[in-house]
Amino acid sequence: GAAASRSGRNVLCLFDVDGTLTPARQKIDPELDRFLQSLRKKVKIGVVGGSDYSKIAEQLGDGDEVIRKYDYVFAENGTVQYKDGKLISKQAIQNRLGEELLQDLINFCLRYMGLIKLPKKRGTFIEFRNGTINISPIGRSCTQEERIEFSEIDKKEKIREKFVEALQKEFAGKGLQFTRGGVISFDVFPEGWDKRLCLDVLEQEGLDAIYFFGNETSPGGNDYEIFSDPRTIGFAVCSPSDTAQLCRELFNIPADES
Amino acid sequence: GAAASRSGRNVLCLFDVDGTLTPARQKIDPELDRFLQSLRKKVKIGVVGGSDYSKIAEQLGDGDEVIRKYDYVFAENGTVQYKDGKLISKQAIQNRLGEELLQDLINFCLRYMGLIKLPKKRGTFIEFRNGTINISPIGRSCTQEERIEFSEIDKKEKIREKFVEALQKEFAGKGLQFTRGGVISFDVFPEGWDKRLCLDVLEQEGLDAIYFFGNETSPGGNDYEIFSDPRTIGFAVCSPSDTAQLCRELFNIPADES
Ligand SMILES: [Mg+2]
Ligand SMILES: [Mg+2]
Ligand SMILES: [Mg+2]
Ligand SMILES: [Mg+2]
Repeated sequence: GAAASRSGRNVLCLFDVDGTLTPARQKIDPELDRFLQSLRKKVKIGVVGGSDYSKIAEQLGDGDEVIRKYDYVFAENGTVQYKDGKLISKQAIQNRLGEELLQDLINFCLRYMGLIKLPKKRGTFIEFRNGTINISPIGRSCTQEERIEFSEIDKKEKIREKFVEALQKEFAGKGLQFTRGGVISFDVFPEGWDKRLCLDVLEQEGLDAIYFFGNETSPGGNDYEIFSDPRTIGFAVCSPSDTAQLCRELFNIPADES
Repeated sequence: GAAASRSGRNVLCLFDVDGTLTPARQKIDPELDRFLQSLRKKVKIGVVGGSDYSKIAEQLGDGDEVIRKYDYVFAENGTVQYKDGKLISKQAIQNRLGEELLQDLINFCLRYMGLIKLPKKRGTFIEFRNGTINISPIGRSCTQEERIEFSEIDKKEKIREKFVEALQKEFAGKGLQFTRGGVISFDVFPEGWDKRLCLDVLEQEGLDAIYFFGNETSPGGNDYEIFSDPRTIGFAVCSPSDTAQLCRELFNIPADES
């Protein structure tokens, strides 16, 4: 029966979300959704995405379906961790950095942004997430038009680039990492808090192998670290249909079975 | 018929929301809800609340019911205005203050908060709304525990009070007004942008009278200005059941009719 065959599943297929299982920020194709559930008869399946849990849940199912459809769900780059339908742990940036460093970082950003002049400024300049602090010089609550206006100015004046340089100088050796997020902001997070975070959980699960599938596996891409990690067998894909095709070949599932 | 009797309704009963129709931030009692719909056979009814539209909608009905149940719905202190189920206008603080003054204000707040030391800081220090800018030295995304910890410190060290004094000094004569909002923040808004804003819309409606009901009608309370305004006939209430009782007496509706 299903239970018996499931208990033998000791390989995990772990998928990035945007660009790997779905078009960016959009819903999964129902056909791929069905295929993954048939793949799940042979292997365990999991996802690790950069978005927060509610966004991933919306992309991969209705309501909280996602935690029933996948054996593991890792949100916010693996800082929020679900197994077998239950939240097992959540990292908090303040626990890793400490309140002192966190506040020095926040206060530096507040003062720095208090000196930036732009055509428009709105609200939510600093957004606090589980595994990252998101910094936006115009403020996240700007409109689509204001967002584009800022991005044009940012291209010319390199506002975010200079901001990150100032932070790298001020906080050198403090274990902080920086990336761009979208067009109006960038992220600050503890060194090593990329998608590899979920491997710390998975290591304890007694799996025979972890196959990782991602679409941004080259250096600088957000799948690079987990793809290159010796604990995974990494596959680079270029679209959701490419992911399905590759899995059919790897696990010998004919195209008409789903 | 309903249409005929409705068309003759030329008095408006305008209600504050929190403390007047509902317990603070909570849902309306179903009995008061039914009573208001029976009152609506005799007069027009409207609400003017400090919260945003989605919060008021949640308190007074399911989904968007509120704009069908009330002839007028004014959210965010009257800066967001619905009539007969349709959004008729929305004020924007940037249009009133201008981008220059708005940005001076935001940058002053960013720099000021960048110098405040607290046990903990989180995110969303400046929230941009339609008619107000909300400023929180700890950041709105703090937890309930962190909120209480901040409020204790604020009582002793008067962090918000000193912040507002600094703003009043820096922006004297610039047409800004300040109030406290809850325990972790305060609001900055253009002078005159209190609940009286909705009277500008209502003046053009050819009403015979506007009866206003509020629970914070003394000086400093958020109903004071509209209550005292000569364009309204003001009633001070102390609870939702008090509001119902008063309306029954004013419009001669027996207690068993609802
Ligand atoms: Mg991707
Ligand atoms: Mg690998
Ligand atoms: Mg009230
Ligand atoms: Mg009056």
